[in-house]
Amino acid sequence: MNKTVFIKIALILSLVFSGLIHADDGKKYRWRLAETWGPNFPIFGDATKNMAAMVKEMSNGRLTIRIDSSNKHKSAFGIFDFVKTGQYQMGHSASYYWKGKNFNTMFFTTMPFGMIASEQYGWFYYGGGMELMKEVYDQYGIMSFPGGNTGNQMGGWFKKEINSLDDLKGLKMRIPGFAGEVFAKLGAKPTNIPSGELYTALERNTIDALEWVGPSLDLRMGFHKIAPYYYTGWHEPGTELQFMVNQKAYESLPKDLQKILTVAMKAAAYDMYSQTMHESGVNLAKMTEEYPNIKMRSFPPKVMDAIRTANTTLLNEFAAKDPMTAKILKSITSYQKKIRAWTNLSDRAYLNSSEQK
Amino acid sequence: MNKTVFIKIALILSLVFSGLIHADDGKKYRWRLAETWGPNFPIFGDATKNMAAMVKEMSNGRLTIRIDSSNKHKSAFGIFDFVKTGQYQMGHSASYYWKGKNFNTMFFTTMPFGMIASEQYGWFYYGGGMELMKEVYDQYGIMSFPGGNTGNQMGGWFKKEINSLDDLKGLKMRIPGFAGEVFAKLGAKPTNIPSGELYTALERNTIDALEWVGPSLDLRMGFHKIAPYYYTGWHEPGTELQFMVNQKAYESLPKDLQKILTVAMKAAAYDMYSQTMHESGVNLAKMTEEYPNIKMRSFPPKVMDAIRTANTTLLNEFAAKDPMTAKILKSITSYQKKIRAWTNLSDRAYLNSSEQK
Repeated sequence: MNKTVFIKIALILSLVFSGLIHADDGKKYRWRLAETWGPNFPIFGDATKNMAAMVKEMSNGRLTIRIDSSNKHKSAFGIFDFVKTGQYQMGHSASYYWKGKNFNTMFFTTMPFGMIASEQYGWFYYGGGMELMKEVYDQYGIMSFPGGNTGNQMGGWFKKEINSLDDLKGLKMRIPGFAGEVFAKLGAKPTNIPSGELYTALERNTIDALEWVGPSLDLRMGFHKIAPYYYTGWHEPGTELQFMVNQKAYESLPKDLQKILTVAMKAAAYDMYSQTMHESGVNLAKMTEEYPNIKMRSFPPKVMDAIRTANTTLLNEFAAKDPMTAKILKSITSYQKKIRAWTNLSDRAYLNSSEQK
Repeated sequence: MNKTVFIKIALILSLVFSGLIHADDGKKYRWRLAETWGPNFPIFGDATKNMAAMVKEMSNGRLTIRIDSSNKHKSAFGIFDFVKTGQYQMGHSASYYWKGKNFNTMFFTTMPFGMIASEQYGWFYYGGGMELMKEVYDQYGIMSFPGGNTGNQMGGWFKKEINSLDDLKGLKMRIPGFAGEVFAKLGAKPTNIPSGELYTALERNTIDALEWVGPSLDLRMGFHKIAPYYYTGWHEPGTELQFMVNQKAYESLPKDLQKILTVAMKAAAYDMYSQTMHESGVNLAKMTEEYPNIKMRSFPPKVMDAIRTANTTLLNEFAAKDPMTAKILKSITSYQKKIRAWTNLSDRAYLNSSEQK
């Protein structure tokens, strides 16, 4: 054998192996995700871990995502900017936290008197919701995706009972999103506070009341010890969290990793809703059995009427100010009307008849 | 340079390229899935197409799944055996179709007076449902997974109104699952018929009534033309379809493709529920506007009481016969009690109060 033969052997061996490589360029992508939540935060934090684990296994380690909780990046409400600037490739938070940056981000979490989770997923994936969200977020170079649903949220923990509209006047309450706007219109003083600071704020009377999530996550926060009145919900019927991805980082991924990432985010979001249902059932039972001092209440009808009126007035005001707001609200309102007719004929009728046995 | 140098070069080049290959062995897996449904069947068929498309894109074509509808394999109810024998690596059907082979397969689709979709997903993924399903299917070398939820199903299309229990006696009805057992106990003659043959069976009086799904899929079947009484549901509150995978075929896949397949099945199943919600809303609106001759009914209270009693009696009878039946029923019953308390406090209370404005 001469040199030429050896060169041929070397080339053939190389080609045999390179032929097996096809689209996988062997490059490893190491991403970072910043989340609003503290470390080991249940359910919300499980959603990011679940997503990252799926991505790692499906990509065989080609894409790994390190999760930084708020103790690490020190900016619970800085997620939007982290992802926009590319400081983090990904974020996990809630779209309505950005209402100060762009009012229209708010409609992609939940709305007072809005859709429940099953209805809203219909809207996101089959009713035009994803397209509208893209229209709002594109200008920031951010891709936004559903990030897990908390289910129907409880109305919150109050130190004092709410018997009339007067009791809302001057009330300092942690309540984000559009519900905060509604409470402000009724004379309350709404604010947003990161989860890690909520208990202290309530204890030190920085706030008089707060809403957090529901039985799935509230018990471990200890609010019941200092604010025993627990109100049923109206303001967040299907709160969807949010995965954010930096557009340029996404585009730098090969097509198969892009798909792995989007499918993992979608599955993790849906999973979080199932986990929320589970934890709500388990913890509500615990609450009922072990915490007899929690006082369950609903707002009196007159208060609810005023809340509903304030909500409608505000929606009309905001829609008149911005065509994009009007466009989103039109989509939500007409979709909700159709899909609610079905929910009423199916699940609602079924649940009501089950209680009449 | 001598021979040794060339051999070294050849080896080095080979190693460089093989290093890029890692776990991807370059092998392409071409699978086949048999589904119970006919070709281009909406929603159910979209779930299999959605799953296969996700798998193909995420695996960059390393795993592709060809879908054979019932027109191809000619055996709508042969899916279980196709997957068991490995004739097909995968199937898409409904677990309760196999109640003749193993009674306990029935509990993984839906149960009369059972859980709605959001509750049942909690049970499957966080409440022990998946583990019980594995226990039932392991003996057949079949892996079973949730395959998409139809939501709360309508009680069906009837040629004549049901005014009393006498009207159920001798009634020939297509109604699968445990509801069929209940109707049999009340004197009806339940049967199961593939979707493609339903209209003809109803037209030719082979059956007097049938239940299929709900507004999402019923209109296109044309049942309203020959059986105008459309009853609300009680018997299938959250029907979950089923993906089946041959265990040995699954084990032949590399770990990353196994994960890609399971995540794609999960996401496709959840997606199908969102699509069902969407199509139900759209088609119910259409039904209300364009089909005034459809007569919406609910069974009279006396009929419902008898159905409920027959259901409970049967459940106790079957639980007494088989320890595995008893084990599954205990899990479902205790889980449903807990999670329903939460559904009642959250979605049901919210939906009811929304109607009282």
